[in-house]
Formats: sequence, structure tokens, C-alpha cells
Amino acid sequence: MSFREDTAVTRVADDRWAAEIRPGWDIGGNANGGYLAALAARAFTEHTGRPDPITTTTHYLAPGRDGPVELAIVVHKEGRRFASGSVTMTDAEGRTIVQVLMAAGDLDEIGGATDLLVDDEPTPMPPFDELPARTNPGGPGGGPALFERLDVRLHPDDAGFAEGRKSGHARTRGWFAFADGEVIDGIGLVFATDALPPTIFNVDAPVGWVPTVELTSHVRRRPAPGPLRAGFTSRFITGGFLEEDGVIWDGEGRLVAQSRQLALVPRG
Amino acid sequence: MSFREDTAVTRVADDRWAAEIRPGWDIGGNANGGYLAALAARAFTEHTGRPDPITTTTHYLAPGRDGPVELAIVVHKEGRRFASGSVTMTDAEGRTIVQVLMAAGDLDEIGGATDLLVDDEPTPMPPFDELPARTNPGGPGGGPALFERLDVRLHPDDAGFAEGRKSGHARTRGWFAFADGEVIDGIGLVFATDALPPTIFNVDAPVGWVPTVELTSHVRRRPAPGPLRAGFTSRFITGGFLEEDGVIWDGEGRLVAQSRQLALVPRG
Repeated sequence: MSFREDTAVTRVADDRWAAEIRPGWDIGGNANGGYLAALAARAFTEHTGRPDPITTTTHYLAPGRDGPVELAIVVHKEGRRFASGSVTMTDAEGRTIVQVLMAAGDLDEIGGATDLLVDDEPTPMPPFDELPARTNPGGPGGGPALFERLDVRLHPDDAGFAEGRKSGHARTRGWFAFADGEVIDGIGLVFATDALPPTIFNVDAPVGWVPTVELTSHVRRRPAPGPLRAGFTSRFITGGFLEEDGVIWDGEGRLVAQSRQLALVPRG
Repeated sequence: MSFREDTAVTRVADDRWAAEIRPGWDIGGNANGGYLAALAARAFTEHTGRPDPITTTTHYLAPGRDGPVELAIVVHKEGRRFASGSVTMTDAEGRTIVQVLMAAGDLDEIGGATDLLVDDEPTPMPPFDELPARTNPGGPGGGPALFERLDVRLHPDDAGFAEGRKSGHARTRGWFAFADGEVIDGIGLVFATDALPPTIFNVDAPVGWVPTVELTSHVRRRPAPGPLRAGFTSRFITGGFLEEDGVIWDGEGRLVAQSRQLALVPRG
């Protein structure tokens, strides 16, 4: 099933949508955080008729397992440029999986065609076609099952942690694409902001589950078709927390999304 | 009145708190965004009995004017380390001023005393005592009324915009303190993440109101007493939007807060 199909939502009441957490978008049985945020963003953009998830803040409250979920939506404001609202995703047992505060709009209408400042370069990456795909779960150079759905190709300098060779830099860079070649829209961008291995895997820190407290994703532009360059870095791993900052570029070298998450250092 | 008094909240029902937007925390009659976020954070930390606003995401939906407001709180999860919840601030006419999604906890208990990575330096600033205070509203070198409550001392290289000398860098650095010397706690830190002039004032862009779509503030450590160093930068002013990233350090050179906001480029 495609990403679009696996994040499909159906209206069941004025303020409620139904969806299903589908298998394959998980790491060890827990749905990926970006996938859950994308599900919420899909419901909210369809609910409001505003195509682009401009800003999506997700709090992760319980693991998302395969199965049906309900998305309850409260719209806080319908403005000229944005609709702002909350999405509560609950599972069949009534557990809250994620709570989301977001704003959607239409990037074509918000305007500001001119780029006044771009003070960064697209993430430096070897060409997509020259890198190996990380598609074989569990095997050497492979990754979790999630990577069967994705065609993520890590920067060689950042990929050694899987074999115990940490780069020493809290950084993960890679190409991001769907394995089936699906075009990446704003909802796909939300997903992409949490789809690469944690930066902390490349520094001298305990390895394990890195629980996300909060993830905020900003969609700045609809990407050109093709794989995206993504770069994630952490500057501060202090007091049991780390931030992970993401920048995503399309194949034409333009900024398409930014993200920051606050996460907990693994307990090892 | 002190910041603490001017962000005081009183419980009026199980899930509702009353407060007042007080004069003097505004810019041209609109309450400062950091002040509104701090009010919500004060209510949520008191409501949950968790002292530190670990992450606070605020959507700005209507201008906050002086007068009474009500803060309705929904707790989404009471976990071992965090309470996560939403705060809706409405004014006397029932208008929603801000909608907040946040998590509070106790930084002393979350632990991780060891700093594993600090890949940045405290914002370089001339000594606090050697810089002029920006306290005279409207006058040369002065600022809005808000700066009577604050003792913000900007980096000389970033302060010239008020006289039309833009630095050319989308950057604002400064010392942050309350004018009355009140000790800055986590609530004060939330305020501090939106208390300096916008970065965009220092680049070739229209000057005017910079509407914040979303502000997320992470409190990473309770600061040591004394003025804080704060640095805000923007890397991307594209498509009508800009992000503003903040890092705040205490006088002992330790990271105490980070922030990112998504804002709209002024229309000039």
C-alpha cells in the first residue's frame, strides 16, 4: 500500500475522522512518529479544506499499534490565511496516542514569492543513484521494517553507527523517498521530518529508543518531484534531553521543510 | 508590578483559571507573544503541580489586549515524567487569544545530570554593565513600552536597525533581564524566547509587525540568577515566512532554553 493509502482518513461525524494505523510504518511494532503526525495532518487538512500543513506540533502520549484510530478535530480559528486546530488521535481502547496542535493553509495563496534570505546550503550528499538503499530489514546495512516502505539513503559518513562505527557528530543526513516512488506532498514532508535514524546514534551515548516528547514540523514549500535531501543535527544533549533540528530540501535545491523535536536521551 | 504578579493565575473551576493581561507587557497595545505564552504556562504548571514548562507551543489567534482572560485547561496525559495538556486563553468577549499545547515536568527529577554534547558557545556579548539599557520608550535608542519592564541590552552590532542601520544579518543578540531584577525561572524563560526585536529588522525586508504563527519554547534548565544571554537567528526568509531560532544561556554559560517560531514576513 502507498503512503497516501496508508494515511487515508474517512469522515465519520462533524468533528471526527476514522483512519487505520497500517503495518509496515513501524519500528519494532510502534508506529513511527512522523507517520502518526502525518495521519493527523491528513485529517486536519481534509477537514479544513486547506491543503498544506504549515505547522504541525505533535505530542506523543502512547505507542501507536496497528489498528483503527479515531481523530477528533477542534478548529480554533478559521482565518484568511490559516485554519488552526487540535487533533486528538485515540485507539480502539480509547487511549490517546497523539495530541496535535497545527495550522493549515494554502502555500500558493500565502504568497511571498521572493526568497529574501537563504543562509544555508542544501545538505551535501553523494548522488542518490550512487548510494545503497537501506531496504533489507535487520541485515547488515539494513534497518527496521519501516525502511521497506521508504527509500532512505544515508550519507556514508553518518551510516556507520549500525556497525558500531559512530561518526562522533550528532548528525544524520540522507536522501528521503518513498520506495514506490510516490510524489512527496506536504503530508509526506511531515512524515519525512521524523523518518531518519536519530542523530544521537552517532555520538558516545546510550543506544536505544529515543522517545520524542514533542515534534514540530514546518512545511515551507511543496517539493519538486523526486528524492529529498534531509539533514538532522543536535547541538545540545543536556539534562537528559536533546533537540533534533531538521532541514529538508527538494531536488531543485530549495528549502521545503524544517523541524525540531525535543526528545529524551535513551536510558541504554 | 513584577512579572510574577503580572502573570498570576487564580483557579475558578476544576479546569479553568482566571488571569489578567496587564498593561506594560505590550507593543503598541498588543500583549507580547512571550508574555501570553508565559501566562498559559503559569496556569498549566500550577494546574498540574509540575514546576517546569518543558515544552510550550503557542498559536496566536487574536491580539491580547489589557483585561481579564480565562484559561481553560485539558490535561491529555499525566505521566511519570510529564503532564501534557492544552490551554485555551479567551478574553472577556469570548475571543480565543492563544491556543497552547504544552508539557510540564520537574527538571530536577527528569535527570540526566551529565551534559553529553554542547556544540555551541554562549552568545558572544559585551559585558552587561558596559551596554546601555533600552528603557526610554519611543526615544532614540529606545523601544516599545515593553522595554520599561525589561532590561534588555542588545549587542551593539545588532542594535542599529532602530536608527536605520541594519546589520545585514538576520540576527538579534542581547542580554535579557527583568527591569526590577526578578529572578528568571522557567516561566520567565518562556517569556524570554519572544522578547527581543525580530531578526528580520536587520535585513533588507519590509519593517512592520511580524505576526507569529507558532512559537515553541523548550526549557532545558533552570537558570542561575542574573541576566541571560539570548541569541536569535533566521536562516530562511522564504515564501512569505521566516523561522526564528533562539538559544538562551545563563550567566554561568549553560544552555537554559531553546525556541523556534514560524512567523510571517511583514507586508511593509
